Amino acid sequence: MSAPRWLTQAEQQAWRAHLTVHKLLMHRLDRELHAFGLSINDYEILVNLSESPDHRMRMSDLADATIQSRSRLSHQISRMEAKGLVTREECADDRRGTFAVLTDDGWDAIKEVAPHHVSAVREHFVDRLSTDQLTEMQRAYAPIVEHLKSLRS
Amino acid sequence: MSAPRWLTQAEQQAWRAHLTVHKLLMHRLDRELHAFGLSINDYEILVNLSESPDHRMRMSDLADATIQSRSRLSHQISRMEAKGLVTREECADDRRGTFAVLTDDGWDAIKEVAPHHVSAVREHFVDRLSTDQLTEMQRAYAPIVEHLKSLRS
Repeated sequence: MSAPRWLTQAEQQAWRAHLTVHKLLMHRLDRELHAFGLSINDYEILVNLSESPDHRMRMSDLADATIQSRSRLSHQISRMEAKGLVTREECADDRRGTFAVLTDDGWDAIKEVAPHHVSAVREHFVDRLSTDQLTEMQRAYAPIVEHLKSLRS
Repeated sequence: MSAPRWLTQAEQQAWRAHLTVHKLLMHRLDRELHAFGLSINDYEILVNLSESPDHRMRMSDLADATIQSRSRLSHQISRMEAKGLVTREECADDRRGTFAVLTDDGWDAIKEVAPHHVSAVREHFVDRLSTDQLTEMQRAYAPIVEHLKSLRS
């Protein structure tokens, strides 16, 4: 390949800030969710199911929505089944496979935890950014999200 | 707790853009590293060791630097030992434990892969942001990084 264009110092600082803020934030949010017996990965699944019609999603759609492999999602769902938060259901007249379904306990859990989680997201991230910074972030990231999504399809 | 302050639409969009861009990006960079037999987690360890004196770090420092638990890092290092990229070394006169050390093969791997990885980071992220956007990102994130680091110590 041609000579590498190494990142400039400013580029490197921004790139590392992005990586570091994300890691520290996920670590912190995960830790605060542990008080409720949930992980950040559990929480993401609960949000997706709770926002879906009938609180259920096809496993393949849930894997796409949470940007992970089917096999990794399957392990995640097994752990959440053991906690009683979700169940798997086969769909008799749909050969495209299994659904993940929120249980009543899962629905209770997300309703209890969501206010605490949103408060943590504010405390550690959103409320530390101005309205302009949030708008700029959305503007900067939206085309990158589109680009990366187009590579997946 | 008091009534939850749910995120506004603009806040929600920015927050979800941050989460989504990060996930899609890590997924893409990981996939491109697979062509070289590495994962994004392997790459991060190789970078940390290659930038350290004598290409070695105490396991506890490496866990801090990569923001993960000792047990998770230990599994990661075992997988990398099996690939011949790193070794573990006990330090006889230092009871604070084990070091992870880059092997010659690990050093060759990072030198080979780094130009491709930086090119991918440019293609999928850095070159899609203006100099102003990168500066603003660094400015927005730096105090959040400081806040979250202070919670860890």
